[in-house]
Amino acid sequence: MNQQMFDKGMSLRRDMFGADLADKTWASADDFNRPLEELVNSYCFGEIWARPGLDRKTRSMLTLSMLTGLNRPNQIRAHVRGAIANGVSKEEIKELFLQAAIYCGVPAAVDSFRIAREVFQEMGI
Amino acid sequence: MNQQMFDKGMSLRRDMFGADLADKTWASADDFNRPLEELVNSYCFGEIWARPGLDRKTRSMLTLSMLTGLNRPNQIRAHVRGAIANGVSKEEIKELFLQAAIYCGVPAAVDSFRIAREVFQEMGI
Amino acid sequence: MNQQMFDKGMSLRRDMFGADLADKTWASADDFNRPLEELVNSYCFGEIWARPGLDRKTRSMLTLSMLTGLNRPNQIRAHVRGAIANGVSKEEIKELFLQAAIYCGVPAAVDSFRIAREVFQEMGI
Amino acid sequence: MNQQMFDKGMSLRRDMFGADLADKTWASADDFNRPLEELVNSYCFGEIWARPGLDRKTRSMLTLSMLTGLNRPNQIRAHVRGAIANGVSKEEIKELFLQAAIYCGVPAAVDSFRIAREVFQEMGI
Amino acid sequence: MNQQMFDKGMSLRRDMFGADLADKTWASADDFNRPLEELVNSYCFGEIWARPGLDRKTRSMLTLSMLTGLNRPNQIRAHVRGAIANGVSKEEIKELFLQAAIYCGVPAAVDSFRIAREVFQEMGI
Amino acid sequence: MNQQMFDKGMSLRRDMFGADLADKTWASADDFNRPLEELVNSYCFGEIWARPGLDRKTRSMLTLSMLTGLNRPNQIRAHVRGAIANGVSKEEIKELFLQAAIYCGVPAAVDSFRIAREVFQEMGI
Repeated sequence: MNQQMFDKGMSLRRDMFGADLADKTWASADDFNRPLEELVNSYCFGEIWARPGLDRKTRSMLTLSMLTGLNRPNQIRAHVRGAIANGVSKEEIKELFLQAAIYCGVPAAVDSFRIAREVFQEMGI
Repeated sequence: MNQQMFDKGMSLRRDMFGADLADKTWASADDFNRPLEELVNSYCFGEIWARPGLDRKTRSMLTLSMLTGLNRPNQIRAHVRGAIANGVSKEEIKELFLQAAIYCGVPAAVDSFRIAREVFQEMGI
Repeated sequence: MNQQMFDKGMSLRRDMFGADLADKTWASADDFNRPLEELVNSYCFGEIWARPGLDRKTRSMLTLSMLTGLNRPNQIRAHVRGAIANGVSKEEIKELFLQAAIYCGVPAAVDSFRIAREVFQEMGI
Repeated sequence: MNQQMFDKGMSLRRDMFGADLADKTWASADDFNRPLEELVNSYCFGEIWARPGLDRKTRSMLTLSMLTGLNRPNQIRAHVRGAIANGVSKEEIKELFLQAAIYCGVPAAVDSFRIAREVFQEMGI
Repeated sequence: MNQQMFDKGMSLRRDMFGADLADKTWASADDFNRPLEELVNSYCFGEIWARPGLDRKTRSMLTLSMLTGLNRPNQIRAHVRGAIANGVSKEEIKELFLQAAIYCGVPAAVDSFRIAREVFQEMGI
Repeated sequence: MNQQMFDKGMSLRRDMFGADLADKTWASADDFNRPLEELVNSYCFGEIWARPGLDRKTRSMLTLSMLTGLNRPNQIRAHVRGAIANGVSKEEIKELFLQAAIYCGVPAAVDSFRIAREVFQEMGI
């Protein structure tokens, strides 16, 4: 594991999902899932998310698009929150999921809209 | 079918995929697939792509993200071309597909990179 | 939005999922998800479901087949109910999901059978 | 392997895909893929397709719906042909794939329409 | 249904998921889902799992790999338990899901790791 | 990019897919896809494939299982070859794809069997 990448990724994760949640997730990792958490921090966030070629806001929108196509509700939930933290507006999330109604099908859009509404309610926005 | 939406969608399709190809696709439609082409023009392009909430460039990037997650090589090929027409740079397509390596898996990224390279070669860019 | 298509779709949705649920879903829509609900009513139900080329019963069976392939449990739950309303028998749903065991794999069939059993129990049939 | 089921399945396959193709597929099986061909004949066709609960025409439509959701172009090609043999009309296949545009997304419908058109051309219908 | 295959499959299922659960699942089957349970016992477990060409431990690992790719959380939960019964170690499950992070994408790995941790906790291992 | 991981991954890739192909792939990378090739070498092969917790043969079998579930024919083709290089026998590949017939569905198994047969023919085995 590359410590510099890990730190860069950890910092980004704290910005996006909240320092409390990011720290708790890492602290509660055990021998079983610690390699995954290291991989997510150093590779996914440190290597890719931190690349300069696209800003975080755009990466959040791409990620929500992929996750809707991939049908991953738990990650959609987390990344709706991350998208808001990265400056994506509710209006833009709405447009993104309408676009998904065409490309991923109506059921995919229905699921993503429902999850986003629940997250907005939890966040009070 | 709503003629106004159809015309708006047709115009957008001509911008994105070239007037020749768009016109030829529509002209060659027969009784079997004409309802689909109408749907794609009026609903997909006229109703959704033409919404003001996101610009075309962003919609192209979201679409490529979804298509990579959905594993649809023919549409990826068409929409790489459409993305370039909508102002997405090669650099941005590269970043988008690297992001896909994380979320959709390495095989999805490998397939999308290969298709994009072939399209760039055809376009001479 | 085309009001005639919207009304036709809304009427169909009330038949399939119950007037109470259909009305409540529409009434509770807010600025965020109202465009989706309009799209579902006018495009999905008004334009496609209402086409004369296939009866509702057949469309319900096709829809359950697609949803099983697509792995969308929430929509399978709703459309098992809709299928019963459209005249699909429990026997036919059983055959459909056995066919899915071959084509979509055993896990897909297991998930769809379990959801259908829960719906039948809720409906008392 | 159950010989009775195998024979029942083989007979059904010959009806759907043509006796020549079905016989050639079986004759060309080697030690590597013979267990698969046995499985397909006895289990897929002999056990499930031959069940009395749904007629062949309906099973063909369900199968095309699942395959469109699952994104399996080679099998869609074969089963468009099988559907015609089982009495599904071109009109019904059109409606089925329009329904798929909603549930599986527009790219899935576009792919299935294109494959069906190619098959119809090959068959001269 | 082939009784010999059914019995062989039932015996294997009892070994993998516990005799209590396997017996209860079969006893609670009704007219609706009994054909599925017969199919799972005789075909899935009796015909395929019982083939001599691969040992149970390897089949468990392949199954968890497929289920992670297919995005089937309920079956992942059951087969993590089955894998432990078939001699797969926690270390090996960890490696398998790290491999999935590459091929199926990070969200697939995150989901499978979380499910496995919950199962290990339930099992007290 | 970590040079040590890159070298380790490159070496592994040469073993699995042939030195000629691995070297040619890397040499032909341009500014567009070089970051992907670096990622595949250093992360996918250097970090994960090279982990001691599972041998290469097992990793090849897991990978083919995932790719069959994910529906990625190009990668299945490459990894059938890689599996043979890693000591997986034709018999084991057959069993793996029969297992996939249950879990991923018959069409997935049919596609994987066909691809594997073509690879074996190319390799003269």
